[in-house]
Amino acid sequence: MEGVQPKSDPNPNPLDAPPPAPVVTRSLQTPLRCIVKLGGAAITNKYELESINEANLSSVCEQLREAMMPQIEKGIGMDWSRRNGNEIELGDISKIGESSVDGLNSNFIVVHGAGSFGHFQASKSGVHKGGLHSPLVQAGFVATRISVTSLNLAIVRALARGGIPAVGMPPFACGWSTRQRDIASADASQIMDSLLAGFVPVLHGDAVLDHALDCTILSGDVIIRHLAEQLTPKYVIFLTDVHGVYDRPPSDPDAVLLKEIVVKEDGSWTVVEPDLLQAEKGVEITVAAHDTTGGMEAKISEAAIIAKLGIDVYITKVGTEHSLRALKGQVHENPDDWLGTIIRSDK
Amino acid sequence: MEGVQPKSDPNPNPLDAPPPAPVVTRSLQTPLRCIVKLGGAAITNKYELESINEANLSSVCEQLREAMMPQIEKGIGMDWSRRNGNEIELGDISKIGESSVDGLNSNFIVVHGAGSFGHFQASKSGVHKGGLHSPLVQAGFVATRISVTSLNLAIVRALARGGIPAVGMPPFACGWSTRQRDIASADASQIMDSLLAGFVPVLHGDAVLDHALDCTILSGDVIIRHLAEQLTPKYVIFLTDVHGVYDRPPSDPDAVLLKEIVVKEDGSWTVVEPDLLQAEKGVEITVAAHDTTGGMEAKISEAAIIAKLGIDVYITKVGTEHSLRALKGQVHENPDDWLGTIIRSDK
Repeated sequence: MEGVQPKSDPNPNPLDAPPPAPVVTRSLQTPLRCIVKLGGAAITNKYELESINEANLSSVCEQLREAMMPQIEKGIGMDWSRRNGNEIELGDISKIGESSVDGLNSNFIVVHGAGSFGHFQASKSGVHKGGLHSPLVQAGFVATRISVTSLNLAIVRALARGGIPAVGMPPFACGWSTRQRDIASADASQIMDSLLAGFVPVLHGDAVLDHALDCTILSGDVIIRHLAEQLTPKYVIFLTDVHGVYDRPPSDPDAVLLKEIVVKEDGSWTVVEPDLLQAEKGVEITVAAHDTTGGMEAKISEAAIIAKLGIDVYITKVGTEHSLRALKGQVHENPDDWLGTIIRSDK
Repeated sequence: MEGVQPKSDPNPNPLDAPPPAPVVTRSLQTPLRCIVKLGGAAITNKYELESINEANLSSVCEQLREAMMPQIEKGIGMDWSRRNGNEIELGDISKIGESSVDGLNSNFIVVHGAGSFGHFQASKSGVHKGGLHSPLVQAGFVATRISVTSLNLAIVRALARGGIPAVGMPPFACGWSTRQRDIASADASQIMDSLLAGFVPVLHGDAVLDHALDCTILSGDVIIRHLAEQLTPKYVIFLTDVHGVYDRPPSDPDAVLLKEIVVKEDGSWTVVEPDLLQAEKGVEITVAAHDTTGGMEAKISEAAIIAKLGIDVYITKVGTEHSLRALKGQVHENPDDWLGTIIRSDK
């Protein structure tokens, strides 16, 4: 047999040998309008393996189109591929030349979670803990990537059908890597070039190589925080399956929606609306919001880091008038009837 | 409406503003065994839109597995996703821990063509000529990428099902760009890291940003040539739907298979077997091989550049004993009964 086997390398971590590539940064020439996270719970059916929530995904695509090109009623269909083995629906391809996209303000980035895609494959194999020398982890890495890139393709196609010039950019293929699950190397220049060329990059949580663990899962929330730091969007939106952050699990009938959270310079955060200190429930928030509100604690921590940069973060429910207002950047026009959570800096 | 529109930028070429990123190169720690091109004509049904040649693709996956792990009868299934809406076939996932991949010599790179994927979308929109300010070209860029990444996902899944640790790496997502269709920036470090980690990178012809045309199509053959220059594999294989390079269209009953082509230092090439100068057909080869042999002229030109580096190039028919021998690096063991074209340096 020819060639040297990577497996028999005395150094078991393939990333130890070469030094990590430096993070290359470049300024975006036009201000990025928004990074929007499509939460896994919002766009997939959480309890059904590899199942997309088609109604929510359609709504996201339609609302994104409306936010990007409010003056156009229907976008140009950009998915010219077969669906479910059927013929290609070309629609109005012959009329495209006449269309105008002058009104297109497409400088959005979309990042989606995995929901019922990828999680099964990752948890069966423990790929987030690393250990690629194990055949199970290696197989799980491949299987996880297949599942999340399938979802990515489905989302890119849905956006494209709605007239949004979406381009899939899986972080592993982008060459992004982590160290102990936090980003070690993530060149955003291809994302910037794509934005400047008028495309909407669509990223996602992915299996990646890790400089300490040899492989892991890079989460969508960490991607969002990194891109916000690098590209300073005007605002960041998390679309999820509930109205925002609550003081306890939203299924609890006493749960209160936290409408505004302010982040201080030192990273600590306070709920300013409703004023919980004035209410009887004042004590419960610290425990509840940190431990039991369905993954919301991690979301608040990541969101707080973004808000500290002076970037407003909106967390709201997918497929509602509130998500549309957030995407259009109109949360502050009439804040009292907007349902969601605003996380902002105290400055 | 917020944000500055990239479309209204006075500079119509989004890639003009920032200088092109330098090509970053790094040495591969282990010799790369082989780059294999799966020709579009070999793995798709050329005359049926977006249709995979399942028999040929299965054969490629099985032969690649045999070349990588000859001592294992069946690889570990690594595609744990639904197929055609059906349940996930997990197969022997519970037994994976017991399996051994010690014999795995996976340092192959796979590059595939588009065949009946992508070509329709690209030609309808003229995306290879650039002009992203045109809505048709922008839509065609998105549609082409959807089509070719769908094929990439299908090929990665087929390889993974056969036990090959395949990872999809679309060149656009990798941040590769061109200038006048030739590679301008193509960092191969993520490919090297993936190889070192034991994965098989799977690339493909893709729509990319171009520094001169603003966008174009980067062909699989140009990718192969670039990777061969960067990574110096032991050999390069082109799997196609005919036995190799002929002196005229293979459908012509008088067509002669060119078994050995030698490339000189100055890039010119000569057929050394059969000895055409001795035969009556001697004169025809120059014209025929350059103009009418179904895309073979471009293939010989790219192959000649690779051969000049001292890397043998084998062109042979998919799904035959000859393709298996090429993948195993056993062409020279009994050259007389090997059917295909060898292109090599005269040194």
